[in-house]
Amino acid sequence: MQRLSLLARVGADAETGGVTRPGLSPAEDEAHALVAAWCEEEGMAVSRDAAGNLYARPGGAAAAGEIWSGSHVDTVPSGGRFDGALGVVAAIEAVAAVAAGSPGAPLAVVVFRDEEGWRFGNGCFGSRSLAGLVGPADLARTDARGVSVADALSGLGLPGPPVEVALPAAYVETHVEQGPVLATAGAALGDVAAIAGMAAFTLTFRGSSGHAGTVPMADRRDAFAACAEFAVRLRERALEIPGAVATIGDVAILQPAANVIPGVVRATVDVRAPTAAALERLVAAVPAVAAEVAARGRCGLDAVSEWREEPVVLSARVRRAVRAAALDLGIPAVEIGSGGGHDAGILAAAGVDAGMLFVRSLNGGASHRPDELSDEADVAAAVAVLAETLRSLL
Amino acid sequence: MQRLSLLARVGADAETGGVTRPGLSPAEDEAHALVAAWCEEEGMAVSRDAAGNLYARPGGAAAAGEIWSGSHVDTVPSGGRFDGALGVVAAIEAVAAVAAGSPGAPLAVVVFRDEEGWRFGNGCFGSRSLAGLVGPADLARTDARGVSVADALSGLGLPGPPVEVALPAAYVETHVEQGPVLATAGAALGDVAAIAGMAAFTLTFRGSSGHAGTVPMADRRDAFAACAEFAVRLRERALEIPGAVATIGDVAILQPAANVIPGVVRATVDVRAPTAAALERLVAAVPAVAAEVAARGRCGLDAVSEWREEPVVLSARVRRAVRAAALDLGIPAVEIGSGGGHDAGILAAAGVDAGMLFVRSLNGGASHRPDELSDEADVAAAVAVLAETLRSLL
Repeated sequence: MQRLSLLARVGADAETGGVTRPGLSPAEDEAHALVAAWCEEEGMAVSRDAAGNLYARPGGAAAAGEIWSGSHVDTVPSGGRFDGALGVVAAIEAVAAVAAGSPGAPLAVVVFRDEEGWRFGNGCFGSRSLAGLVGPADLARTDARGVSVADALSGLGLPGPPVEVALPAAYVETHVEQGPVLATAGAALGDVAAIAGMAAFTLTFRGSSGHAGTVPMADRRDAFAACAEFAVRLRERALEIPGAVATIGDVAILQPAANVIPGVVRATVDVRAPTAAALERLVAAVPAVAAEVAARGRCGLDAVSEWREEPVVLSARVRRAVRAAALDLGIPAVEIGSGGGHDAGILAAAGVDAGMLFVRSLNGGASHRPDELSDEADVAAAVAVLAETLRSLL
Repeated sequence: MQRLSLLARVGADAETGGVTRPGLSPAEDEAHALVAAWCEEEGMAVSRDAAGNLYARPGGAAAAGEIWSGSHVDTVPSGGRFDGALGVVAAIEAVAAVAAGSPGAPLAVVVFRDEEGWRFGNGCFGSRSLAGLVGPADLARTDARGVSVADALSGLGLPGPPVEVALPAAYVETHVEQGPVLATAGAALGDVAAIAGMAAFTLTFRGSSGHAGTVPMADRRDAFAACAEFAVRLRERALEIPGAVATIGDVAILQPAANVIPGVVRATVDVRAPTAAALERLVAAVPAVAAEVAARGRCGLDAVSEWREEPVVLSARVRRAVRAAALDLGIPAVEIGSGGGHDAGILAAAGVDAGMLFVRSLNGGASHRPDELSDEADVAAAVAVLAETLRSLL
């Protein structure tokens, strides 16, 4: 908890009480340096790869068949102090404890770069670099000020991918849940079964603007009315699919005015589901429902699919180890799905035995906000279960 | 049509092809000067009152029991060339024609100031000044740059209200319909029965923001989902009430992001109805439906009533004169309601025998836009009917 407090000072946001450490920024670099110092205090050998990912090995040099634990220390703007950071400090504690009892065991703490991805519009930069998934187009992406990923890397003295580091045999990531499910279930920990598949769309409803008083209801081509009906119907569809969610997070009326019928409305759609079949069902519903609603409202429709990521099933081997550890230690842990993306998903898709341990989020599951909170007892339980899990995976 | 083209040069917007003449601006003043020059060419005596309204009398001095015709020459930003301007140029033609046959008849062309009201957030400034309805609070209103109504008046050399001008016996305003009803009915002209009652609300739905992936649908307090359901239900209510309309023209999500559940959403609501009973029914539905939807979505709600104006029934005497004139001239005219507010409504509410003649709008009823259009033949028909109406009212 003390280390989480110290990390929260790096990029602290006095106004909001949150923490801002953009990916590939000096603030993220400073957090990496702090983590490196702690790892060295624990007697680990610290190195970093071409993408800036940090590795700390109690055994000194890299070995075959390593077991890794870690997460990330970049944050969203005015984020909380647990997201990412908890997985890193838990890994330091657990790896050090396991190594103390098994000197020379092939363990490592890992800290990935730019997991959040909001700065350059693409998450999990560090783990994707490790998995060989970052190409020239990713390096050419720019942030709001026009700084490219390549520029940001060279500003930190990093050559950038390719990364010449072997994938581990297993990876276990501790992370706050970022939602209310564990709190509702009364469980401190979650055994994560899968990372949800996700897809994003941008919809543009094109009606006809007009005077709010002079166009009869029946003659209107109201783009916001179409968008609203779409939102209601998509919500109904998502509620029918177990574990699925749909969010319309950004809606913009072109030239909005209280006394003008909206002519053009643009809306973002984010859909997620735990299985490939459920994702496919929800993804197919988006343009279908939008087209039906637009046609009924005599509006045009542009439905653009922005991106799609398939669900990732996490390692059964790691899940068994997590379950056994929690059971042995008498800590309540329940199966849960992850609705957010994580570095563990990238490693699992790359063939690593990757798993995740979620820690109960308080404050209604507040996430990406300064009031993100997990309880000290739950954090201690997570460290204990993580250490036991790493031991059994060796 | 030539005069409409000349007026459209004042405040012409090269980029959009529209016309921008804010109320109480130099551009509105320049349009008044142009109209004054035309009236003087027709031999009328021009004067203006303390609020800047223009009067042009073919008989020279003011008289008892006058019959007026006119409208306004201010516009919305990038508005069309017909809205307001048509009623003024039609009045010049018709008053001049009637006066030619009835020298000394108590007729006047009138041009009211700042009818549109968007600059200071309150319409019909000129006619309300004439009716004694403008007080210190109205004069203290400011535009987006902080200029007050009082400042704008003194910048034009105008003392401002009170206005020392006697109300006329009757007022007839020609105006473009600004909607598709006459075009659909195949009628060149509309005999306006009443001006709709109107009310405006601002609603704020207060839910809870959260991660788009980690909060199950059933646990969400999604403020946009509540707003969307409100929009769908209010539309259903408006469709049940003959002649009523409801518009949600401006919707803003607080801190919108594609991957964040909207926490707070503010929406404007504009409702209008042709009768007091219908308006009351629709006005009562706004907070009731919003509260029901907010409660179901576990959102808080602030429902603020911004303003309300009761419907105004126009003069039966003027309506009979308009109908008889159209019939005599063989011009198709149908009964219609006005969904927009007009200076004629202010005068009718002040006890004047006020009426309106609507001219068919083309382009689907496009209004407050550069592509606002009425046909030359319809405009000529309106001038003929207006002249005949003024003659019969003398």
